[in-house]
Amino acid sequence: MRVGLFGFGRTGKSVATVLLQSKESHLCWVIRKSETLQHRSVPEFLGIESDEPGLIFPKDELPPPRLFDEHPIDVLIDFSSAEAILSYGGEAAKRGISIVSAISEYPGTTIDFIKKLSQQTKVLWSPNITIGINFLMLAAKVLKSIAPYTDIEIIEEHFKAKKEVSGTSRIMARVLSLPEESIKTIRAGGIVGRHEILIGFPFQTIRLTHESISREAFGNGALFAAQHLMDRPIGLYSLEDLLIPYFNLKQHI
Amino acid sequence: MRVGLFGFGRTGKSVATVLLQSKESHLCWVIRKSETLQHRSVPEFLGIESDEPGLIFPKDELPPPRLFDEHPIDVLIDFSSAEAILSYGGEAAKRGISIVSAISEYPGTTIDFIKKLSQQTKVLWSPNITIGINFLMLAAKVLKSIAPYTDIEIIEEHFKAKKEVSGTSRIMARVLSLPEESIKTIRAGGIVGRHEILIGFPFQTIRLTHESISREAFGNGALFAAQHLMDRPIGLYSLEDLLIPYFNLKQHI
Amino acid sequence: MRVGLFGFGRTGKSVATVLLQSKESHLCWVIRKSETLQHRSVPEFLGIESDEPGLIFPKDELPPPRLFDEHPIDVLIDFSSAEAILSYGGEAAKRGISIVSAISEYPGTTIDFIKKLSQQTKVLWSPNITIGINFLMLAAKVLKSIAPYTDIEIIEEHFKAKKEVSGTSRIMARVLSLPEESIKTIRAGGIVGRHEILIGFPFQTIRLTHESISREAFGNGALFAAQHLMDRPIGLYSLEDLLIPYFNLKQHI
Amino acid sequence: MRVGLFGFGRTGKSVATVLLQSKESHLCWVIRKSETLQHRSVPEFLGIESDEPGLIFPKDELPPPRLFDEHPIDVLIDFSSAEAILSYGGEAAKRGISIVSAISEYPGTTIDFIKKLSQQTKVLWSPNITIGINFLMLAAKVLKSIAPYTDIEIIEEHFKAKKEVSGTSRIMARVLSLPEESIKTIRAGGIVGRHEILIGFPFQTIRLTHESISREAFGNGALFAAQHLMDRPIGLYSLEDLLIPYFNLKQHI
Repeated sequence: MRVGLFGFGRTGKSVATVLLQSKESHLCWVIRKSETLQHRSVPEFLGIESDEPGLIFPKDELPPPRLFDEHPIDVLIDFSSAEAILSYGGEAAKRGISIVSAISEYPGTTIDFIKKLSQQTKVLWSPNITIGINFLMLAAKVLKSIAPYTDIEIIEEHFKAKKEVSGTSRIMARVLSLPEESIKTIRAGGIVGRHEILIGFPFQTIRLTHESISREAFGNGALFAAQHLMDRPIGLYSLEDLLIPYFNLKQHI
Repeated sequence: MRVGLFGFGRTGKSVATVLLQSKESHLCWVIRKSETLQHRSVPEFLGIESDEPGLIFPKDELPPPRLFDEHPIDVLIDFSSAEAILSYGGEAAKRGISIVSAISEYPGTTIDFIKKLSQQTKVLWSPNITIGINFLMLAAKVLKSIAPYTDIEIIEEHFKAKKEVSGTSRIMARVLSLPEESIKTIRAGGIVGRHEILIGFPFQTIRLTHESISREAFGNGALFAAQHLMDRPIGLYSLEDLLIPYFNLKQHI
Repeated sequence: MRVGLFGFGRTGKSVATVLLQSKESHLCWVIRKSETLQHRSVPEFLGIESDEPGLIFPKDELPPPRLFDEHPIDVLIDFSSAEAILSYGGEAAKRGISIVSAISEYPGTTIDFIKKLSQQTKVLWSPNITIGINFLMLAAKVLKSIAPYTDIEIIEEHFKAKKEVSGTSRIMARVLSLPEESIKTIRAGGIVGRHEILIGFPFQTIRLTHESISREAFGNGALFAAQHLMDRPIGLYSLEDLLIPYFNLKQHI
Repeated sequence: MRVGLFGFGRTGKSVATVLLQSKESHLCWVIRKSETLQHRSVPEFLGIESDEPGLIFPKDELPPPRLFDEHPIDVLIDFSSAEAILSYGGEAAKRGISIVSAISEYPGTTIDFIKKLSQQTKVLWSPNITIGINFLMLAAKVLKSIAPYTDIEIIEEHFKAKKEVSGTSRIMARVLSLPEESIKTIRAGGIVGRHEILIGFPFQTIRLTHESISREAFGNGALFAAQHLMDRPIGLYSLEDLLIPYFNLKQHI
């Protein structure tokens, strides 16, 4: 699976590390925002031994048609910005390149554009592209359907400097039909990220907890998404869509 | 739904409390081991106002044929001992009374007997009949199938006086194909019961935790089982079997 | 140590249970609000075997002078209401009976009255009279003095029906000089009570957590207070005051 | 405060980062094991802007007398190996340089040597030099003295590859007079490090938990130690010794 990566900020670098170290993917290139180029390859930049090219291109050096023609890929992973897909989307879709986007938010018109792309190629969009968080939301949804009389609370903890309520917890609230005020926000020290969905029964309590250790988790999620898209037909997906088949347990386990 | 309850020890009493307070069930009678009868009804004994009969019979006062004929029920809930089902099973099955057993362990021959009963009536057997614990096991099973490369550990905490490893944690280990040694056992003070399934990813950690508040949780589980058996065909079930349909999520949630 | 107990509601009963089962205390009597008397002794009422008298008197049957003269005690434990101390305080102080009050709040004038009593006898007042909660507050206070640059958050969890923010968490906030808004309140199912003081460092996180199992914890706290008052001079104390000497660690441990 | 650092492995680099970014310390130099020198200064190596020299010397380039004469320091922080102190100890002590060692274990003869050094200069040795862990141990020690009848359990969690029981948890067990077998060891995924001291009362549970976010925590601990040694007389200290004065709370807080 040949992969191209848009975005080489803090998260992008962590994702690149995972892609380089995985046997399932082959990191062909990375598009970065900054013009200054001290290194021309990701393995060199990150100090990882690898025989994958991992070429680094500044954003505007290679316009998409040339980029895809000269450096062909199967999957494009996007951790850059909400605008990027407008520039590469059409050319990628035309060539049947799968698109995996982890962008937090898109304006309405871009979402329409993405829906159109998904008629031509496979597109997955997931703002929090970790297996753990998406599993947690589905599991909580199942439990709520089993025991609709329970009380559900969401507690999210992050480092002090994080100003707003976490986007992930807001998606959790939406998926579980809870008002956004029901999210309890803890800000302290250097906590990387912790989300807890607490489900209170009259005589028992269940806690579904996700603790982030580092940003590399996004890389594993993106890789999982890219691999699972391979067996899927053209269309628009979320990471949850790819997890749902695993929930279809058979009787008499 | 008319219910009869075998067992009126500490757990049986908690189960009776839940049954009395539920609008879905009608507690007809309870069979207790002890001969001494200071009270003749459960509401009186527990100090709960209720117009349900809740008669208390000592174990050998009414042999099953008379018991079922004079005090007919739809579901029999068993929190007594491994022998009880041998005495009431045949008569209950003959009358199509559903059986919900929460007995921890049965000898092999009794299990064969139960299988035979389940050809005549609906039988559910679940050693830990709480919604929470059974949900947790299924959720962990799903997660293991999504991410088989993760490390799973089970931590169980109980009051100091509890000698052996908890039966629930041993079932968890079996369901998740973990060696029994992988269970970490904490014994301290008066902890009612806490089970944690920890799933370690390289860059994220998931904890699925169940905390028991009181034994009434078993009552809610038994009630859930009794109600869900109503729509099911004759056969042998576990509580997990009744939860599995809730896991069948649909795409594009 | 001969003990008298004011208050025989849900908490009072739990406290009485602990007092009856302790070898260090001798429960002489209990004053209850309700007039109706189905039982005349605590052991009989609670079904506990004991040779301690544990007489139950309705509130107005025996006015304090007669009560203390006919049924003398060393310590009076008060889990009743904010008014009670006004009726028994003067007579108890006159006789040098120690007073241990677990009343949540007193009006200002009553606090003045209590200060006056404490010039005549030993008085301890602690709204949350558990060893655990008071230890937690002192430990957090120590840690804040070690690392004043950390971020502190208080999370309290209780059963759904509990309306207001827990009084304990408000005291915690005051002791740690945190604004009351910094308390995060979780209400779900039947959680008995859980308080967490989270201290966030840049590169590490400390959580000091207290989980209530049952109201009997108040009995142990009251007993601890009564015993530790014995070696103390006349004066006004909080439970924290009695714990502070244990914090005075010696060098080279 | 002029600081020299022995050790520039993974932990040493994190410590250097903290020292460079702190206003209280001035990082003069670092001694590293490896001979190959691609960079000659720590700020350059770590990509941190700083006007502190942070010179990097290979282990044997400058023998201690010349090192201390040409590049004078007030405090030497040691994150290297158990042998290092034998080479620099005598010269440092002679010059009154304070020594802060975070080495896990020393052979008996080296400990004797360290004791001798501590008659000439201030020496602090702490195998786990984080404020959090040492606070936790002292707090648990206090609580055990308050409630000696409680059950204490230690749970430690680390990444899968960590083979042996954590040294920190073994020190905890020793400090709390618990048998080493009472430590429960969890190994899963990429957990950086988590230690929990669980104290079980009959009716309440206390959990004192420490979660490591990153190795920089050791830097903060070493800095804390170096600063607090300044007001202390010559002698041998542990980090706990420096924390103890903070535990000396005054009555009527």
